[in-house]
Amino acid sequence: MKIKATNDNVWIVRHPQQTEVGGILIPESAKIKVHKGDIVTVGELVSDKKIKEGSVAIFNKSAGFPIEEGGVEYTVLTQIDIVGIDASSK
Amino acid sequence: MKIKATNDNVWIVRHPQQTEVGGILIPESAKIKVHKGDIVTVGELVSDKKIKEGSVAIFNKSAGFPIEEGGVEYTVLTQIDIVGIDASSK
Amino acid sequence: MKIKATNDNVWIVRHPQQTEVGGILIPESAKIKVHKGDIVTVGELVSDKKIKEGSVAIFNKSAGFPIEEGGVEYTVLTQIDIVGIDASSK
Amino acid sequence: MKIKATNDNVWIVRHPQQTEVGGILIPESAKIKVHKGDIVTVGELVSDKKIKEGSVAIFNKSAGFPIEEGGVEYTVLTQIDIVGIDASSK
Amino acid sequence: MKIKATNDNVWIVRHPQQTEVGGILIPESAKIKVHKGDIVTVGELVSDKKIKEGSVAIFNKSAGFPIEEGGVEYTVLTQIDIVGIDASSK
Amino acid sequence: MKIKATNDNVWIVRHPQQTEVGGILIPESAKIKVHKGDIVTVGELVSDKKIKEGSVAIFNKSAGFPIEEGGVEYTVLTQIDIVGIDASSK
Amino acid sequence: MKIKATNDNVWIVRHPQQTEVGGILIPESAKIKVHKGDIVTVGELVSDKKIKEGSVAIFNKSAGFPIEEGGVEYTVLTQIDIVGIDASSK
Repeated sequence: MKIKATNDNVWIVRHPQQTEVGGILIPESAKIKVHKGDIVTVGELVSDKKIKEGSVAIFNKSAGFPIEEGGVEYTVLTQIDIVGIDASSK
Repeated sequence: MKIKATNDNVWIVRHPQQTEVGGILIPESAKIKVHKGDIVTVGELVSDKKIKEGSVAIFNKSAGFPIEEGGVEYTVLTQIDIVGIDASSK
Repeated sequence: MKIKATNDNVWIVRHPQQTEVGGILIPESAKIKVHKGDIVTVGELVSDKKIKEGSVAIFNKSAGFPIEEGGVEYTVLTQIDIVGIDASSK
Repeated sequence: MKIKATNDNVWIVRHPQQTEVGGILIPESAKIKVHKGDIVTVGELVSDKKIKEGSVAIFNKSAGFPIEEGGVEYTVLTQIDIVGIDASSK
Repeated sequence: MKIKATNDNVWIVRHPQQTEVGGILIPESAKIKVHKGDIVTVGELVSDKKIKEGSVAIFNKSAGFPIEEGGVEYTVLTQIDIVGIDASSK
Repeated sequence: MKIKATNDNVWIVRHPQQTEVGGILIPESAKIKVHKGDIVTVGELVSDKKIKEGSVAIFNKSAGFPIEEGGVEYTVLTQIDIVGIDASSK
Repeated sequence: MKIKATNDNVWIVRHPQQTEVGGILIPESAKIKVHKGDIVTVGELVSDKKIKEGSVAIFNKSAGFPIEEGGVEYTVLTQIDIVGIDASSK
């Protein structure tokens, strides 16, 4: 990507919303509060080195805001929005 | 686990809620304000070295938020939510 | 004790509430605002070295919250709640 | 330009508002939340070195305030307003 | 005294309230906003070295809170409550 | 001037309010949000070295407060009020 | 004086309120927002070295609070209240 995140921003591409678990449909009301996404660019003020390009971030579903750029929808988070990295996705 | 906590987050698996003490049932109204749980992953910005994988954290019952991942329910805390480590559990 | 305090937490066991001074009963309404307690475990982020295991802490009566653990009732304070150490108690 | 930004300010010249994507008109109501602009001067307290003169900043559309100077309309942002740099624009 | 102040606390014993100036009674309504007191113990986080045991502190009359200990009434201040030291009292 | 600014204060003398651009009168309602002024004295806690005596500051029109001193009206700003320096004015 | 300021406090003796300029009486309603005073004692946490005993401070008229001590009325300011030093007064 030609975009470079600045400050403590982290640009991610969200994974498709999980709608079932083990073949069972998740009702809308179920309290899934997080979402995952591929990290595509990380600002140089991000201080946790686990948050890096190519990793899968776990973050609060309502965090960040959307930006469409070159036909792709990104979500722009800040470092603090990310609660974990899913290493199994790689 | 394949999840790695980021920032000052601490992922724990809660112990079953204690419902009796010495064989006597604890009424719902009793003011037990804490819960315990196994620490499974600790973000690299956590500054207290006693908070580490494999220890049992004591934390405010209402702190953190739940995440289901790979069939396991985790609670995501931040460092400040943890008031002590139960070394007797090991 | 098998509990180890974390962060800037200080676990204490409260002394019995003082109910008389020099043989004279203290009325409920008297404005005694502090309480004393034995310090049993101190988090590693506590920066005042006078606050240590075995000392008697003086703290605001309403500070902290109670935790029962192994049949003992503790009060969990943070460093800032403690206004002095009673060295005469030792 | 003869203007030099101070503190953590970043002066930019906004690109024309994007009104279509791939030949399709974007309705006013579409939630495009960001804008781009050419960075013309950067205050010496800006700590992210990617934010520099000549780069294209991506920022929240409603951030900053306008200044007309020598017939040019600038938007004055602060460092934190900028979420990314568009390297493809160069 | 057997009490040792902690953190940025300063324990003082208030001087008797000044009720006259040069033989003239001060009416209750006069706006005397400060009080003086002997400093008896100083927490190790107090950063101004003029605030030390044996000095006379000048402080806002309404600052701090009272503690009776061993038959003596103390006022517990924090460093910031003290606006000056009265060196003439010594 | 015999006045020396303290702390992060910057004393300036405002330029006459600009009332026309290129010979065209600016209506009162036009959104000119900034003003310029000559910097006459800079406090030693100002951390941006571009903000110095003799330069022309650009600042939010409503920032600071007026002081008349020796027949001159000054505006006292703090560092943060200044968004740029107009180097073309020299 | 026998008083020594503590922390970031600055004790001053206010100059008489200026009631005329060039022989013309200043109406009460005129917006003179500052006052001057002689600095008599400076706390050791004051970080601007221009603020020192014997200098004339310029400060917001409503800042600080009064203390009468040894028959003299002082105003106790903190460092931040002082916007400049009047070097012409010396």
